[in-house]
Amino acid sequence: MDRGKKIVVALGGNALGNTLPEQMQAVKITARSIADLIEAGNQVVITHGNGPQVGMINNAMAALSREDPNQPNTPLSVCVAMSQAYIGYDLQNAMREELKNRGLDIPVTTMITQVRVLQDDPAFENPNKPIGHFMTQEQAEHAAKEYGYVMAQDAGRGYRRMVASPKPYEIVEIEAIRTLVNAGDIVIACGGGGIPVALMGNHLKGQSAVIDKDFVSAKLAKDLDADELIILTAVEKVALRFGQPDEKVLDRMSVEEARQYMEAGEFAPGSMLPKVQAAVDFAASKPGRRALITLLEKAKDGLDGKTGTVIA
Amino acid sequence: MDRGKKIVVALGGNALGNTLPEQMQAVKITARSIADLIEAGNQVVITHGNGPQVGMINNAMAALSREDPNQPNTPLSVCVAMSQAYIGYDLQNAMREELKNRGLDIPVTTMITQVRVLQDDPAFENPNKPIGHFMTQEQAEHAAKEYGYVMAQDAGRGYRRMVASPKPYEIVEIEAIRTLVNAGDIVIACGGGGIPVALMGNHLKGQSAVIDKDFVSAKLAKDLDADELIILTAVEKVALRFGQPDEKVLDRMSVEEARQYMEAGEFAPGSMLPKVQAAVDFAASKPGRRALITLLEKAKDGLDGKTGTVIA
Repeated sequence: MDRGKKIVVALGGNALGNTLPEQMQAVKITARSIADLIEAGNQVVITHGNGPQVGMINNAMAALSREDPNQPNTPLSVCVAMSQAYIGYDLQNAMREELKNRGLDIPVTTMITQVRVLQDDPAFENPNKPIGHFMTQEQAEHAAKEYGYVMAQDAGRGYRRMVASPKPYEIVEIEAIRTLVNAGDIVIACGGGGIPVALMGNHLKGQSAVIDKDFVSAKLAKDLDADELIILTAVEKVALRFGQPDEKVLDRMSVEEARQYMEAGEFAPGSMLPKVQAAVDFAASKPGRRALITLLEKAKDGLDGKTGTVIA
Repeated sequence: MDRGKKIVVALGGNALGNTLPEQMQAVKITARSIADLIEAGNQVVITHGNGPQVGMINNAMAALSREDPNQPNTPLSVCVAMSQAYIGYDLQNAMREELKNRGLDIPVTTMITQVRVLQDDPAFENPNKPIGHFMTQEQAEHAAKEYGYVMAQDAGRGYRRMVASPKPYEIVEIEAIRTLVNAGDIVIACGGGGIPVALMGNHLKGQSAVIDKDFVSAKLAKDLDADELIILTAVEKVALRFGQPDEKVLDRMSVEEARQYMEAGEFAPGSMLPKVQAAVDFAASKPGRRALITLLEKAKDGLDGKTGTVIA
């Protein structure tokens, strides 16, 4: 069955909002944008971030522990799992409804996805990704002592828990994802970068880490032999000298150009840089593969070459 | 590919424990019991309850709302979704590891599953299923006013939120479940009875309800054309006059006998009754289908006719 291009779509934070009411609205817009791709005959696999959501769930579980001494602290990996359901449930429903409204009856499913990381990943020596809410120094010292958290001052607004952001090594549930994709289903997978786990013998042990969702999306796109990786975000095109008076937006970058721009420090770490890194990772992995970075609402226009930045 | 019998296994509360440390231990025993069935050549689909877990998540989200006024109350349907991931992540890992230990490399996946209920289900007029923690009268009146909860005294220990327990009408993600089952994967689905939703036009709206996991398991077993429904619980056999001096355990019941016993009030509502109802529902649905109720640890012995109560 020819379904056009096989596309992995990575959704950024603006596709989901910061609270549940925001999420329920945001996923409608997101669903319209993705349905445009599907209606045009393409097959889509969806990944998404979970920054605010996993922080919120982490806070909720910590609040429960404070109220109920029988309730132990909940590991971050379990919070990531819960965030996949918290987001996936709304997102799959919005997708299902948007497709039904267009007369398309395609199964949409959320898969709880674990992603293996390596324990000797150097990221574990330098936990630099802040999660959860801000704490006072006293609270931070308590969290460090009680739970073994790494705490650090963040943005001058107080202390936050810092966790490692290791590279994705293997998507544990890739075979099941592939089965559903091959059946023509729309799969939501690797939410929040996936539940970080490390292999110990036959056991997968949850890790206190968050995996970059753009890196996982590139991995997933390679594993599924996708044609295109579309990273949807809050800007229409990638820019050089972003925010400067002489800012220059890019319609296209070769892999080589993108690498040069990265080396020159053109893209902000934690923001555009991981997106360009993921785009390059995918585009460089096999001839014919290309990546697109554009605005959430412009996915179809980007695919049609009307906007966005192509990395190929 | 012949994989022996196709079996839906429904796990009761004892298969999962009440807290996360308990769950991480309990799923190991559960995984061994289910792996016995798989190693013998059968194909297994797993469902499970979520009573303590969805209550705990509901409490955590409520605790967060009290601490953070920007965080609105989280609907029960979202809490059910989160419980599917909270449990599924541990359960799929324990299954995967137990199978690997036996040299079996079979994908195990958790699917976020919605189950449609009908809005005119009479259960909605009589919310009688208690969830979440006990409250004082003052807290109960606040919850009723603030969130529109139905509150009632429960077991003389205080007030609890009561929700409806409507019948499962349609498993929304059944096609994707079938695709994975047909591919030979082990699927964990319909956790906690499924996320209860009602169809409004093309929209699926979350409902403040919990669906009985045994009823959903019977529905799933019928939808998948399974050979057997195994309901694993804390007793080895179904008994007449349970707990009385003249208690009589049953090795076997015909559908007709089971119906007579139910009519005579032999089985406790909220406990053995829904299990026998689900067993009868499945066994009566097509010639050759049978149901088995037995102890968590005795699944394989029960399948082999060595113990448990067969309903056929």
